Amino acid sequence: MLEERRVGDVGVWFVGARGSVATTAVAGCAAVAAGLHPPVGMVTETPPFAASGLPSLSSLVFGGHDTATCPLPKRAEELTAAGVLPHGLAAAVRGELTAADIDIRPGGPSAGDTRTDDELVARFASDITDFTHRHGLARTVVINVASTEPTPAPDDPRPAPSSLYAAAALRAGCPYVNFTPSTGARTPALADAFAARGLPHAGRDGKTGQTLLRSVLAPMFTQRALAVRAWSGTNLLGGGDGAALADPAAAAAKNAGKERVLTDTLGHAPEGEVHIDDVPSLGDWKTAWDHVAFDGFLGSRMVLQTIWQGCDSALAAPLVLDLARLVARAHEAGLSGPLPGLGFYFKDPDGGPAALSEQYTALLSFAARLGDAR
Amino acid sequence: MLEERRVGDVGVWFVGARGSVATTAVAGCAAVAAGLHPPVGMVTETPPFAASGLPSLSSLVFGGHDTATCPLPKRAEELTAAGVLPHGLAAAVRGELTAADIDIRPGGPSAGDTRTDDELVARFASDITDFTHRHGLARTVVINVASTEPTPAPDDPRPAPSSLYAAAALRAGCPYVNFTPSTGARTPALADAFAARGLPHAGRDGKTGQTLLRSVLAPMFTQRALAVRAWSGTNLLGGGDGAALADPAAAAAKNAGKERVLTDTLGHAPEGEVHIDDVPSLGDWKTAWDHVAFDGFLGSRMVLQTIWQGCDSALAAPLVLDLARLVARAHEAGLSGPLPGLGFYFKDPDGGPAALSEQYTALLSFAARLGDAR
Amino acid sequence: MLEERRVGDVGVWFVGARGSVATTAVAGCAAVAAGLHPPVGMVTETPPFAASGLPSLSSLVFGGHDTATCPLPKRAEELTAAGVLPHGLAAAVRGELTAADIDIRPGGPSAGDTRTDDELVARFASDITDFTHRHGLARTVVINVASTEPTPAPDDPRPAPSSLYAAAALRAGCPYVNFTPSTGARTPALADAFAARGLPHAGRDGKTGQTLLRSVLAPMFTQRALAVRAWSGTNLLGGGDGAALADPAAAAAKNAGKERVLTDTLGHAPEGEVHIDDVPSLGDWKTAWDHVAFDGFLGSRMVLQTIWQGCDSALAAPLVLDLARLVARAHEAGLSGPLPGLGFYFKDPDGGPAALSEQYTALLSFAARLGDAR
Amino acid sequence: MLEERRVGDVGVWFVGARGSVATTAVAGCAAVAAGLHPPVGMVTETPPFAASGLPSLSSLVFGGHDTATCPLPKRAEELTAAGVLPHGLAAAVRGELTAADIDIRPGGPSAGDTRTDDELVARFASDITDFTHRHGLARTVVINVASTEPTPAPDDPRPAPSSLYAAAALRAGCPYVNFTPSTGARTPALADAFAARGLPHAGRDGKTGQTLLRSVLAPMFTQRALAVRAWSGTNLLGGGDGAALADPAAAAAKNAGKERVLTDTLGHAPEGEVHIDDVPSLGDWKTAWDHVAFDGFLGSRMVLQTIWQGCDSALAAPLVLDLARLVARAHEAGLSGPLPGLGFYFKDPDGGPAALSEQYTALLSFAARLGDAR
Repeated sequence: MLEERRVGDVGVWFVGARGSVATTAVAGCAAVAAGLHPPVGMVTETPPFAASGLPSLSSLVFGGHDTATCPLPKRAEELTAAGVLPHGLAAAVRGELTAADIDIRPGGPSAGDTRTDDELVARFASDITDFTHRHGLARTVVINVASTEPTPAPDDPRPAPSSLYAAAALRAGCPYVNFTPSTGARTPALADAFAARGLPHAGRDGKTGQTLLRSVLAPMFTQRALAVRAWSGTNLLGGGDGAALADPAAAAAKNAGKERVLTDTLGHAPEGEVHIDDVPSLGDWKTAWDHVAFDGFLGSRMVLQTIWQGCDSALAAPLVLDLARLVARAHEAGLSGPLPGLGFYFKDPDGGPAALSEQYTALLSFAARLGDAR
Repeated sequence: MLEERRVGDVGVWFVGARGSVATTAVAGCAAVAAGLHPPVGMVTETPPFAASGLPSLSSLVFGGHDTATCPLPKRAEELTAAGVLPHGLAAAVRGELTAADIDIRPGGPSAGDTRTDDELVARFASDITDFTHRHGLARTVVINVASTEPTPAPDDPRPAPSSLYAAAALRAGCPYVNFTPSTGARTPALADAFAARGLPHAGRDGKTGQTLLRSVLAPMFTQRALAVRAWSGTNLLGGGDGAALADPAAAAAKNAGKERVLTDTLGHAPEGEVHIDDVPSLGDWKTAWDHVAFDGFLGSRMVLQTIWQGCDSALAAPLVLDLARLVARAHEAGLSGPLPGLGFYFKDPDGGPAALSEQYTALLSFAARLGDAR
Repeated sequence: MLEERRVGDVGVWFVGARGSVATTAVAGCAAVAAGLHPPVGMVTETPPFAASGLPSLSSLVFGGHDTATCPLPKRAEELTAAGVLPHGLAAAVRGELTAADIDIRPGGPSAGDTRTDDELVARFASDITDFTHRHGLARTVVINVASTEPTPAPDDPRPAPSSLYAAAALRAGCPYVNFTPSTGARTPALADAFAARGLPHAGRDGKTGQTLLRSVLAPMFTQRALAVRAWSGTNLLGGGDGAALADPAAAAAKNAGKERVLTDTLGHAPEGEVHIDDVPSLGDWKTAWDHVAFDGFLGSRMVLQTIWQGCDSALAAPLVLDLARLVARAHEAGLSGPLPGLGFYFKDPDGGPAALSEQYTALLSFAARLGDAR
Repeated sequence: MLEERRVGDVGVWFVGARGSVATTAVAGCAAVAAGLHPPVGMVTETPPFAASGLPSLSSLVFGGHDTATCPLPKRAEELTAAGVLPHGLAAAVRGELTAADIDIRPGGPSAGDTRTDDELVARFASDITDFTHRHGLARTVVINVASTEPTPAPDDPRPAPSSLYAAAALRAGCPYVNFTPSTGARTPALADAFAARGLPHAGRDGKTGQTLLRSVLAPMFTQRALAVRAWSGTNLLGGGDGAALADPAAAAAKNAGKERVLTDTLGHAPEGEVHIDDVPSLGDWKTAWDHVAFDGFLGSRMVLQTIWQGCDSALAAPLVLDLARLVARAHEAGLSGPLPGLGFYFKDPDGGPAALSEQYTALLSFAARLGDAR
């Protein structure tokens, strides 16, 4: 259905293009564009965004990097068996999956790879530029949805792998979104360079479950003047993310983001820890339990517990599509540098408020600003 | 510590003055005023309210109506044994409890009472006026914290008991707050009369647990474009409220309020029921379990569950003190009629937004307006 | 794969043969017999039952009554879409589903049916006998898996519909199992007649979720001398059972069984209620929340909460297959009347212990006895 | 009330005598003996134990070792403020607390202590023997209720501190109970020596919450032939135990016991981890969340979650009193070596079954055997 490319089509280049999130995004974009499913979970399809000049779903063209080789149509079948994609969907959008698969290039560095960082960046940038030219795209947004990488040691002179891809986006003149807790463009040098080049970027770490809840519950306690003593949490998940985050160094980056919302909203860091457990049999489904011990009037001890059971890829994919459209339009509208108006989507945003309701208000303002720029 | 009344003291007249909420409010007000406890749970003690001209806690004088006869100091001991009040508190504020106890008058109608409704209203109004004069108070706010009454039948010509007290407040020229789901001033005739008499009023049904949570969680689903299919809930509580709400007619009023927040916020009424169970052994502690079944992207089925364990009186009392101060100041500032700026406190408010964050913004505006009126 | 019937094949006649439980049982029996799935959930496939002389899964022949008309292969497709059956299974066992479908006869009485109760019983018995003869079966077990019927009024002279089917089983000389809370054979006259005819029967109300949990947790409290004060529960489910049990009269029968395990095990009826809510969007998936308030040493107040999320048909179907095999073998072994050794499977059993561990021990004894009778 | 010691009084010597468990046990024993509270939580006060010849509660005399110095009456006040002991209890049993306090001796080794292990053992043994003689006791049971010590490294030649106390019990000719996960008598040399000396001993690690639940739930899954895939858990607690177990080395010992029940009952180790978080604001109250992912029929994915909220000391103290009585009587009856009949009480018992129901049966047999030995 995307056969006739129009001038103005927009590229979406996934770092981690064969992962569950990217596969769900490609399949879901096609399904929603074809009217097979309502756009549940896509904020940009709600009325306040109608006049923002966002690229249509049918104008998005997908490609990306990945070190894995499993073809997207097969990945979609796997996600169907796992209950992530509804039955019949993979077959219905097989054409779009195959099209995107053709535009996936090898990521890196792979084992035994002797290329220098600069060679890798040049290679990645060239892949992205070729994709943009080949499809005659108005612009391409690079989005990191790869597995979380370990937090780099402070004294490690080498850039994180995620930063190589961010540098490639920069070199290719593309806006950049980091949906993971990895470093990406979150270094002073890269952040400055994006701004200097007039490129917008947004991040980091998509807010899809426990932290989403925390960003509405923590403000409630503050507004009601209730004293949160301890906020403890455990996450169980089994997909690739579960395995990646079982590495304490990788979990550290994620947990820093999770705790930021509490500190920013409550004004102090409550007691309590956050655990991320790899439970392979849960597959892409995750469960997050939170236990909040708080004091009420006259020191009475009370407790709130929450249990969130969701499908990680299905939570992330519509937000990734939202971000692709919003950041592409921001680029078109001439915005550059970090976009604090997109804090609604992230655990660890580039400034802006921490409470979800305020982030939503900021997002609506951002959407209006995009519309005004038409 | 309240021995020397100053010109400008404010009366707080509780309908249900010997109940757990009123007893906790009287004891807690004295304890916080004396610096024995921090004002946890009192929104009016946070910085945004500092310039609103609210009466100080130490200027509040308590009295009220009740059909029960147990003295307040004894009620406070009972609440201590039940874990609602901290140990030592009842003894520390015994003077204030005894002072309030002296100002409690018999409620009604009692069994075999042959007085007409008008005679009852006249009696109640006279009790309130006497209290105001006896203490030389600048004004008295009447607050309904009595047990929930059954929803009146649509064709019942007699006013609900709670409306008799509201009529008495009106006749005595007092602002009125309805912290319960009972009818109170929520009749066209009474609402008009309050406005005509220049008296502010606020209600109804304090938002202290399950509905408080719903008022932050439902907007989250809406803002994220997630499709809520079913929202089910069960409340367990054992105090007088548990027994009162075990009556289906009484529960009907409460549940209507609880569901209103969902309908107003989600834009539709999801599947699901709300149960309120009387579990005497829980005493004043309540547990609310909520189960939200929602659809994500591409029809994926997800679930959020919440468990709220709190002490009903400790949740309600600081809000009651907040309302007494805010409505007294509104009266002083010349406001009259319903106060939609106070929707933050109620399940079933007199207009205004349904989402807690917007209600909080409205409350801050209201507080600023009170300050401007000085 | 079941084409060549051997002497000794056993019939399984479902009352409610087109329902989710029966469809899952037929499909699952074929799948397990063919080695497509391990026999998870089938207790009779564990080692202690190997020597009991039970009929093999491949020797079971299915038929039944139903007032619905949707063909079994189509019902299996519906259950696949609902996530109850795994993908591909319906196609893999289409032959067995079609074979069973051919042996389903109209249930009743239908609307406008003018047949007397005796005519209905005769018709049903004739259907069962024809089935047994047609397939040359050694015996046929009749199993009620129909929707729960309302509790009959004590003074209602007419037998419950479920009792008509039980009477038909009796007339056809078949053992009978009641997996529902309906009356079935649980009347003095029917119970006596089954025993007099030398027919075994078992019931009632399969124990698949909340009550299963209660039958292990309540003994724990008793063994530890902990004092259970209140046991409250809410069930959410959406399949046909959800709608049937939304009728308070139907729920009454089910709840009586649920509470029996507590009373029998704890020695008293704790405070607390049980709710069964119809939540259509949950489909065949059910959620049961239980809240147990108990006292520990020196009156300390403690709480246990459980949340059980399961698929009703997938929980019931393997137990139904277990019961078919066990009761068929009991009949072969000459046992008659109620079988208290099967209390492991029921909420409201025909005698025997209430604790699951003791019921399991009794079941193992029963299995050994079946083996000894060979 | 214990002033007149009778021949036959039994000593209970706590290692960790000023801790929450010991303080609760001393206070609770006195309260129950005096009829101030029913013996909730004490299994030995139920009918099956009436003929076992157990020492009466009023015949128990308490003493012990501790490195802390806070007097027991003050500890009891602290536990009252924390909601562990009911109000008024500490005052009512002040005499018994003071009496026990007099019999507490310094533990060790303390910082800078230059005594050899043998000198410490000799000192501890002498303290115990003096206590036994001073009170003319028939025997003294030594019970470890001290904070959990780190798991010793396999190649560490020094005995664990808990083993020094076990060695002292041995030298003093006393039966020994280890209610903690520390090593205690669980070394080949000590175990042999206890048996050789004719002394009974029991352990280890009291089963009071999450593992208690697991010991009834895991057998349920096995008996129902359901396939447990993952069993994950998080414990939040704040008392001394919370801080001790925040040390990964200490938690390792505890977690090994917790997982043993799953492995022993399920026949395999499921996926999943166990976390123990120190949350100081919870004090002595602990919360344990468990998440069990299991497969049902045809691979359907289901989940059970449990939340246990209890007071650690109130759960442990009655079991400690049970064990003191049972082991004292076992010593009197001439039993020696490990007592597998007491597996009911322990996470990591000395043999015997793993399922609670079977452990309860074993305990009843043990109780009967004690009675027969009279």
